[in-house]
Amino acid sequence: MNLIPSRRLALAGLASALAAPGLLRPAAAQPAPAAPAAQAPGFYRFKVGGFTVTTVHDGSLTRPIESFVRNAPLADVQAVLAAQFLPTDSFRIPFTVTFVQTPTKLVAFDSGNGVTPATATNGKMIANMAAAGIDPAEVDAVILSHFHGDHVNGLLNAANAAAFPNAEIFLPETEIAWFGDAANESRSPEGQRGNFANSARRLAPYANRITRIKAGAEPVPGITAIDAFGHTPGHTIYRIADGGAQAIFLADVTNRPELFAARPGYHAVFDFDADAAEATRRKVLDMVATDRIRTTGYHFPFPANGYFTKDGSGYRYVPADWSSAV
Amino acid sequence: MNLIPSRRLALAGLASALAAPGLLRPAAAQPAPAAPAAQAPGFYRFKVGGFTVTTVHDGSLTRPIESFVRNAPLADVQAVLAAQFLPTDSFRIPFTVTFVQTPTKLVAFDSGNGVTPATATNGKMIANMAAAGIDPAEVDAVILSHFHGDHVNGLLNAANAAAFPNAEIFLPETEIAWFGDAANESRSPEGQRGNFANSARRLAPYANRITRIKAGAEPVPGITAIDAFGHTPGHTIYRIADGGAQAIFLADVTNRPELFAARPGYHAVFDFDADAAEATRRKVLDMVATDRIRTTGYHFPFPANGYFTKDGSGYRYVPADWSSAV
Repeated sequence: MNLIPSRRLALAGLASALAAPGLLRPAAAQPAPAAPAAQAPGFYRFKVGGFTVTTVHDGSLTRPIESFVRNAPLADVQAVLAAQFLPTDSFRIPFTVTFVQTPTKLVAFDSGNGVTPATATNGKMIANMAAAGIDPAEVDAVILSHFHGDHVNGLLNAANAAAFPNAEIFLPETEIAWFGDAANESRSPEGQRGNFANSARRLAPYANRITRIKAGAEPVPGITAIDAFGHTPGHTIYRIADGGAQAIFLADVTNRPELFAARPGYHAVFDFDADAAEATRRKVLDMVATDRIRTTGYHFPFPANGYFTKDGSGYRYVPADWSSAV
Repeated sequence: MNLIPSRRLALAGLASALAAPGLLRPAAAQPAPAAPAAQAPGFYRFKVGGFTVTTVHDGSLTRPIESFVRNAPLADVQAVLAAQFLPTDSFRIPFTVTFVQTPTKLVAFDSGNGVTPATATNGKMIANMAAAGIDPAEVDAVILSHFHGDHVNGLLNAANAAAFPNAEIFLPETEIAWFGDAANESRSPEGQRGNFANSARRLAPYANRITRIKAGAEPVPGITAIDAFGHTPGHTIYRIADGGAQAIFLADVTNRPELFAARPGYHAVFDFDADAAEATRRKVLDMVATDRIRTTGYHFPFPANGYFTKDGSGYRYVPADWSSAV
């Protein structure tokens, strides 16, 4: 018989139904699920002290591998990928947003890619938030790591209004000091110039509820900003701490860790200042490896939480064990 | 605001509702979800040629670490676990059933732990099957690796009837030759003696639809038995092949690979013949590492599919990349 689920068991197919404006209807009225059978919802939960962290997958986009690492021969890059059983003819970049529920606030770190461009693999965040029971209207704070499009585009919904209608925005002072000043545009690398207009447009609906923060700031009790400049001028990571437990959202300290933690000296095409990004990467990876700190990352393989251990001249990413109990 | 989902978005909470006999009801009639917010459903899909593999998590049980490895000092075992960021004061054993949808048959490899003993972390298989859209009545074949309780107990449902009412059972000839002959009971290690009565009881409702198979047999087109004796007298693994692609269900060639692939010479407390199990483990891991074959395993960390690579004197388990598209 066929794996395509019978209608009464079409839970996976419900994700899209739930994401739509309509409420649940009786089973007989459910639309038939699309063939082939769908992937599991992309979310995962774990505790940091009394906080609940939920990683929510936005999907992935595939890029040419040829131009992704600026300072290493293609064959070397492909050898690293092959050793980790990843494709060598293209580079799949996953996107995962880290949510944290504290006793008082529901926080999102970055916003996802938003509604466009949707592909077969990408644009999954709203459906996966629905599967995780997270209503965008219940998000109290969106805390941004930096202003690249894949991190801020999801601030707008399909109507170009605030996708998180009740959220305050916290963002790095250093990031907006750079990208908020048009005089810096011509002084930025060519590939970074689109971030000026784009970040302004994405932040516009939130204009009266934006707070600029610096290293050491605690936008929400238990969540602390840490400078991690280089990938962009104000790239910032966040410590999540409660009751003696901690985790760190690493944002883009690495792109896929299988490549950039294994080879911390590799420079990714998206780095604003690749030398500074490398120095930050080496410092942060040394810290989380030495102190055995659980991490989440925006481009880690889903479920996008794990640890780093020294391995040769670099670091190996070790996914945290999956548990059926939160 | 609180992460506990609003009723219209309570998808995670639906898993249990769907597993119950009732059909979907309108949103207003949905029961309030249990606090705290639930874990994601435990299933994951990938393709092997035209076949769809779905791994379905049954949960995990935690055992004392002190007695789990018979032939190594506790401190050494704990050092291996710590290096992989696993707890060192206990040993969590996950259980995951591999389903394969071929063009003609829906196959399950082993049956899960069944309905008892249910714990906070275990007994998740029926709910996770429902989440994956897999109806036990639609399973055409249950192909068994061996007769340990965690692999055959799920053949019975809560009413002690066939949990897979329409399934044929395929099982290793060598396994039933041993455990089906009461004369062998006193010749078995003490910890293995319960398997005689238990496997007979679990198989009883299927008595008229059991097929005994040997290495090389193809119980379902594309699925081939491979001898992997040692863990039990007839322990058998299965190659899943279609259109030039392949994967292998490794069953209990290793318990958690973070321990027994890293140290193939470790002997687990559950091995019937630990020396034979070790020889099998070394041979099979060498094969899948050399040929870079994707594997699933009954005790792998969920989603329980990945690769093995040589690492020092052992092997390192590399989880396959998670994809939002099947």
